[in-house]
Amino acid sequence: MITGAAGFLGRKLTASLTADPDAGGRVEELILVDQVPQDAEPAPGGGPRRVLVAGDLDAAAELVAREDAPVDAIIHLAAVVSAGAEADFDLGYRVNLDGTRALLEACRRLAAPPRFVFASSVAVFGGEMPPVIRDDTVPCPQSSYGTQKLIGELLVADYARKGMVRGLSVRLPTIAVRPGRPNKAASTFVSSIIREPLQGEAAVCPVPPETAMWILSPRRAVQGLRHVLALARADHAGPRTINLPGLTVTVGEMVEALRRVGGDAAVERIRFERDPAIERIVTSWPSRFDPALGRRLGFGADPDLDAIIAAFVADDLGAPPGPA
Amino acid sequence: MITGAAGFLGRKLTASLTADPDAGGRVEELILVDQVPQDAEPAPGGGPRRVLVAGDLDAAAELVAREDAPVDAIIHLAAVVSAGAEADFDLGYRVNLDGTRALLEACRRLAAPPRFVFASSVAVFGGEMPPVIRDDTVPCPQSSYGTQKLIGELLVADYARKGMVRGLSVRLPTIAVRPGRPNKAASTFVSSIIREPLQGEAAVCPVPPETAMWILSPRRAVQGLRHVLALARADHAGPRTINLPGLTVTVGEMVEALRRVGGDAAVERIRFERDPAIERIVTSWPSRFDPALGRRLGFGADPDLDAIIAAFVADDLGAPPGPA
Repeated sequence: MITGAAGFLGRKLTASLTADPDAGGRVEELILVDQVPQDAEPAPGGGPRRVLVAGDLDAAAELVAREDAPVDAIIHLAAVVSAGAEADFDLGYRVNLDGTRALLEACRRLAAPPRFVFASSVAVFGGEMPPVIRDDTVPCPQSSYGTQKLIGELLVADYARKGMVRGLSVRLPTIAVRPGRPNKAASTFVSSIIREPLQGEAAVCPVPPETAMWILSPRRAVQGLRHVLALARADHAGPRTINLPGLTVTVGEMVEALRRVGGDAAVERIRFERDPAIERIVTSWPSRFDPALGRRLGFGADPDLDAIIAAFVADDLGAPPGPA
Repeated sequence: MITGAAGFLGRKLTASLTADPDAGGRVEELILVDQVPQDAEPAPGGGPRRVLVAGDLDAAAELVAREDAPVDAIIHLAAVVSAGAEADFDLGYRVNLDGTRALLEACRRLAAPPRFVFASSVAVFGGEMPPVIRDDTVPCPQSSYGTQKLIGELLVADYARKGMVRGLSVRLPTIAVRPGRPNKAASTFVSSIIREPLQGEAAVCPVPPETAMWILSPRRAVQGLRHVLALARADHAGPRTINLPGLTVTVGEMVEALRRVGGDAAVERIRFERDPAIERIVTSWPSRFDPALGRRLGFGADPDLDAIIAAFVADDLGAPPGPA
């Protein structure tokens, strides 16, 4: 089961598991849950069956424990995102805390504890932080979203400790370059300043060039989710929350990487227009990590910005990079 | 309002606030909530009115928002303790997580955000720990109780950040010497090996003399709760969870301190009989802290074991210490 399956990461994970249905055991069926109705694209022959479910996490929890076909692995991506959980306190807690708990409670009723992969976030960090976030850096969330993600991690760890799920949480970096359109996330510019100029469109950058971020490409994020799904298969000893490796980049470095692919013309489509509110949020996020556990467990980051942009062009623009 | 008011700490806090009703503003009324029916002892003249409530945390939450007399400060002590929350998973989450959340939700409905003091525990720590726990040591609970206490801290911090409560959490050390009888807590011997011999009774010590613990006397714990209640009055900047200062002692040091008060006869009433299960739990707890924030905020620990035992004798045995 994938929750939040209609999101961009859910769709990419679905495509990946369809093309290669080996995820620590062959995937026979994908139950794709999302509140947003999904297009019933025919799955390619030979891939896993697809069951599309339009519903919330309570509906997902009911499905989990179906006696005729118990779910054996859940990748829980569905969430009210940062700005949304901050604006609607009740909705954030209902989905991000109660929804996660409802899923875990359903898992607990199963005869065999299913794998449970929880997509957490670097938003669990905040406040006074060391210059480099290590695996033993104390999380101190400064948003309801970060609080709820951290509580989710703790629940997964406790249910796993009790043998109710085979659970692991991964803290995802900012995912860039995302396909699609800008959204209301404070981080949306991180993708926009690459994505829009490469398609001949203008983009606004609300933070100065020296602003640093911790990013991961969608391709690597999908690989990471597949890898943690395979890890969760075995009985896991040690910490159950993993900071995923990523890449520290500055906005200025992103601009120069864009120039190497799209030339000066692409770079000229970016307008720098500082927005103090966004700048305050973005600079409160950690940008440098030493994700020793994640590296030891075999998670990989993107080698450099050029690779990230090339992956975006190949996967989402459907064309090889144009000449500089 | 004091939840868990019938517990030994709740009773001592009630007595303290009755004798000295100044807690960052004069206490006019004490609403004493506990599932255990409480004796309606007449309050001394001139002290705060007492309202005894027999009920759970949902009942407490309903009371909080009474329109005729909104509560302006809550000291939330009620909890299913460690062994109980481990044995009854549902009960632990219902009381320790849902109960705490119900109280916070009730506070949120009030026109003026009340003070909210949450009694957390050093049980939030566990797993691989540094030799000395600092304020920035990452909690890694190894029990459902510790998980629920840590989630409570996070909820208090998020509700406080949003201005819904003026909230602070304090992580209490093992409280010793407790009055009363041994209970089922793994730590019960810490009090027993002082309390029972001083009353001419036998005590069993399940861990070897070199076992170290982080302790605080009931008297200092009550002072700490009163102090954090006063701190919560002001708008608080900075971390909202405070490791309370305590004292690192070994069982062997406790035995020698007992000898200084009760003589060899008292010490001979202790029988050392190792219990590997209890030893494993007790040695998994952190015993050394550097509680810099707590010290800076003016929390005090007991100066030494002799003072702890003298306080127990004075407060709970009702007699000055006898000759050695």
